[in-house]
Amino acid sequence: MTISKGSQAFPRTEYVRRLAAVKSEMERRDIDALVVNNAANITYLTGYTALSAYVPQGLVVSIHREEPTFILRRQDAPAAIHQTFLERGNVIGYPESLIGNPDMDGFDTVIDFLHELGVASRSLGLERGYLSAQASEKFKERLPKARIVDCTKAIAWIRGIKSDLEIAVMREAAAISDAAMLRAAEVIRPGVREADAVAEIVATLVRGANGKPGTIFRPLYLCSSPRTGTSHIMYSQDVFREGSQINLELGGIRHGYAAGLMRTFSIGAPSDRLRRLHDAEVAGMEAALNVVQPGATCSDVANAFYRMIEKQGFKKESRCGYAIGIDWLEPTASLKDGDMTELKPNMTFHLMLGNWIDEDFGYVISETFRVTESGAEVLTSAPRNLFELS
Amino acid sequence: MTISKGSQAFPRTEYVRRLAAVKSEMERRDIDALVVNNAANITYLTGYTALSAYVPQGLVVSIHREEPTFILRRQDAPAAIHQTFLERGNVIGYPESLIGNPDMDGFDTVIDFLHELGVASRSLGLERGYLSAQASEKFKERLPKARIVDCTKAIAWIRGIKSDLEIAVMREAAAISDAAMLRAAEVIRPGVREADAVAEIVATLVRGANGKPGTIFRPLYLCSSPRTGTSHIMYSQDVFREGSQINLELGGIRHGYAAGLMRTFSIGAPSDRLRRLHDAEVAGMEAALNVVQPGATCSDVANAFYRMIEKQGFKKESRCGYAIGIDWLEPTASLKDGDMTELKPNMTFHLMLGNWIDEDFGYVISETFRVTESGAEVLTSAPRNLFELS
Repeated sequence: MTISKGSQAFPRTEYVRRLAAVKSEMERRDIDALVVNNAANITYLTGYTALSAYVPQGLVVSIHREEPTFILRRQDAPAAIHQTFLERGNVIGYPESLIGNPDMDGFDTVIDFLHELGVASRSLGLERGYLSAQASEKFKERLPKARIVDCTKAIAWIRGIKSDLEIAVMREAAAISDAAMLRAAEVIRPGVREADAVAEIVATLVRGANGKPGTIFRPLYLCSSPRTGTSHIMYSQDVFREGSQINLELGGIRHGYAAGLMRTFSIGAPSDRLRRLHDAEVAGMEAALNVVQPGATCSDVANAFYRMIEKQGFKKESRCGYAIGIDWLEPTASLKDGDMTELKPNMTFHLMLGNWIDEDFGYVISETFRVTESGAEVLTSAPRNLFELS
Repeated sequence: MTISKGSQAFPRTEYVRRLAAVKSEMERRDIDALVVNNAANITYLTGYTALSAYVPQGLVVSIHREEPTFILRRQDAPAAIHQTFLERGNVIGYPESLIGNPDMDGFDTVIDFLHELGVASRSLGLERGYLSAQASEKFKERLPKARIVDCTKAIAWIRGIKSDLEIAVMREAAAISDAAMLRAAEVIRPGVREADAVAEIVATLVRGANGKPGTIFRPLYLCSSPRTGTSHIMYSQDVFREGSQINLELGGIRHGYAAGLMRTFSIGAPSDRLRRLHDAEVAGMEAALNVVQPGATCSDVANAFYRMIEKQGFKKESRCGYAIGIDWLEPTASLKDGDMTELKPNMTFHLMLGNWIDEDFGYVISETFRVTESGAEVLTSAPRNLFELS
């Protein structure tokens, strides 16, 4: 029996639009076929969100075919048929014998397909930044006549400007982020284990908001005293204490699209230093958002923040954020000094103002925003408070 | 101010033992320095579990130094000082200016360190299977006189045989897996949204069992009708219905170590086909566990399962499991026909008997076990039921 098509996050026309943009970029680079193996890029072009990328898989986009061909593990092919807009003939499962096999793997099936497609002596795009050194060499060795062009960030740049349909999904994700942050403010209490609070927070990320569940969950980061100078510890086995500070980063996710959000909590009155830093950061955030408009650069946004907090006697060493979308971070534009990427309508960013000042002292606040025709629309809407809990 | 050392999952002697095994393997391969960039391997050798591996980082093991040197993003260095057994001088943070920088990245700092260490014209081990093609080329270009040796799976093979300390942690993880599976049997009900059930299940994975929380959460897979032929969809936006079948894979995690567990649920009476498959699979599982002992091979275990279910008229195409430990799957031994890896005491496996028979029909059951001196100790202990819910 065959598996049914599931409900699709986007209409076929949306995927065709995205593929047209990719093919246009392929033509610009004179590429006949592009092997997409980055999982976020596969989600973008097909709607596939199953988590099978720990084994080889590749989506082959040919300049001559409307639909791409998705080659993945046999065991995962039904999920691809169910979740994507692709016709079932464009999903190819490779044999299970290639799993845990020291001699061959799924990329061999992708390469066989490229030979059948007739592009073995043509121009071939690869995402070499997402291929291991070993896999990349396999493509070179088995396609010796192909001209291989590195396309690591090509699709990520296209993803940078969202459609209105994508923005609608990101608004749903942002509402989930807000709900989870407000839940955190309810459950973080002295004497509570961090794990028990995180259990409630992640449960909220999954249950979602406004009747729309999170469609997947991803790591969150709850860095509490004495770990507020750290940024990527998920949580600890400690219990919250009177006087603890808690830095929390989380994100709701809808159909792959994440909306990042960070807030800082204090159990009991915050220190003067923390209060002053919070005030400076909120002022910096407002200054940064105020310069957002089409034509401004990423560097402009970052520098508006840096100048404002410097006035208050603070500095931030790290960048002020990055493009955000499927699977969180897009490896393209950064909100940092010197990044001359021009803002365009429907670009989306995580304005990430986490500031890890000392080894043992940091503070976090962030929003996810989109560029509008004339400014910024902040998608997340949790209060910009230094949450004081008791 | 400096950050304090956190509580360590293992004593320093345990890490020294692991490093001695790695250095012994380096000597065997005539390697002076090994750059470890796989996140699970870094956890194994240091205790670091913060989730910063989305940017370059490297743990440099020198044959001539007791402790390795951990080079990572400046923003993440405090987490490394806090979480690992390393002396603070052996944690080096690279500048934030290397993040989102098109020209240089953290691997340049790792390479600079290798030059300082005096190994630029010596033998250098790299985990090329975990380095992108681009990163691997950077090492070659900037260390043209080094003899580069691929060590992709070297540490994973050492990880394969656990210490009793690691087994104790895996027992804690397995107890969490059991608790989450029993929670699933409570919350999966007709009319309940999948997301609401998953929220409760992941919350249990985080809260843990026996007073020991999960220390991190990872994806789980809840594949319900009509998706029982799929294996890696996290969950859907559907509501459970009368007659639904639900295949669930999850794992508790302690200090990075996972214990995988799968069970199948039926809302209402299962079909005859499902009941027969369940009976065959449980018999196959028992047959497989019965042949586990030191000296038997992975192939023996898999074939005991395959022969038993064939007697009942079923087949399984995919392998019967794999070595398990930090970050779940170890990319070494597979329980599959032809894998002649010999079992040794304190090897641990996820005996993964998920069987996706048709596009629209599959069944799952699994256990995590360790090899003892004379047989198998099954670490997970949820009832081997086809759970019938109503």
